[in-house]
Amino acid sequence: MSERLEAQFAFLNEADRLKSVLRATTLVDGSRPENSGEHSWHLALYALVLADQAGPGVSIDRVIRMLILHDLVEIDTGDVPIHARNGQAHASPETLAAEAKAADRIFGLLPSDLGDSLRTLWEEFEAAETPDARFAKSLDRVQPVMANLMSGGGTWATYEVTYGQLESRVGTKIARGAPALWDWVKEKARPWFG
Amino acid sequence: MSERLEAQFAFLNEADRLKSVLRATTLVDGSRPENSGEHSWHLALYALVLADQAGPGVSIDRVIRMLILHDLVEIDTGDVPIHARNGQAHASPETLAAEAKAADRIFGLLPSDLGDSLRTLWEEFEAAETPDARFAKSLDRVQPVMANLMSGGGTWATYEVTYGQLESRVGTKIARGAPALWDWVKEKARPWFG
Ligand SMILES: [Ca+2]
Repeated sequence: MSERLEAQFAFLNEADRLKSVLRATTLVDGSRPENSGEHSWHLALYALVLADQAGPGVSIDRVIRMLILHDLVEIDTGDVPIHARNGQAHASPETLAAEAKAADRIFGLLPSDLGDSLRTLWEEFEAAETPDARFAKSLDRVQPVMANLMSGGGTWATYEVTYGQLESRVGTKIARGAPALWDWVKEKARPWFG
Repeated sequence: MSERLEAQFAFLNEADRLKSVLRATTLVDGSRPENSGEHSWHLALYALVLADQAGPGVSIDRVIRMLILHDLVEIDTGDVPIHARNGQAHASPETLAAEAKAADRIFGLLPSDLGDSLRTLWEEFEAAETPDARFAKSLDRVQPVMANLMSGGGTWATYEVTYGQLESRVGTKIARGAPALWDWVKEKARPWFG
């Protein structure tokens, strides 16, 4: 057991570094950039509170597990802002390859049974094909929209985003997993774009 | 539905403030104090990774839900360091009353069905009587021990803690929910105290 616990804590201590990965989005009060550790916590809370927005067959507990893990690869790759490089950086082949390499290293710190099961869950999130993953992705996209709205524009101002770009880069992904949520949020967001 | 979503997001936006509540413990690299939002994320990850340390009948998903919620009251009360005021501050009647008042306000932002169910879960955590709550409390106590060990002493140095005090204030609570974990961690911690 001792060897197993050594590996579990090697991973948990390494994971601490996610608290030092900064995102483009700020806190709701605009005081500083958000880090990816606290962002992951906030998303887990989103899942608990917005469970009634999930479609049939969604397991909120699996969604929460995905959201806890979803950004760990950023310890090696950093956060890739969705509106950076004119919206092209996020799913580029380079980004995906770097994230897969990071997943090898980070989940590889764990005992292999555990590392494999957590990595499989992360891959399900990334693929965004299952109902659980689609709902998790919707929450990951809606939380920065709320932070931007609350803080007076945030990354929309930084990257000169138009309402059309918000709709195509963000709205379509929110709507895929939580259509009623996007209907509500877009009415909140539209006035900001004038 | 619109009124319900307004209440859900009033709560989620307010919850963002937990990211600005600073703890006595630092990050593992010692670079800055940890905040209670990222701490809550790290504990949820602890639960996922250390699930094999939970006793029979523990639901890891309920444990994770508790850990996501467990510190929200600190938005109003601040974090109360376990070793502050010679170990007496943590469960004082004043602290407990302030936390109950904070829970009224913060969970009260939610639609009442949802606010009641999340508050009930937080109360279960606080009471530390059920197997789920005891395991959650063990994780909440073990994570700062690891941060102190990794960062060269942390709050043990700040508050001049002895090994006997660590055992009585922290060890007994870790052992209640995760006895084998405390057996392992105490061997790691003891040498620091000389
Ligand atoms: Ca991200």
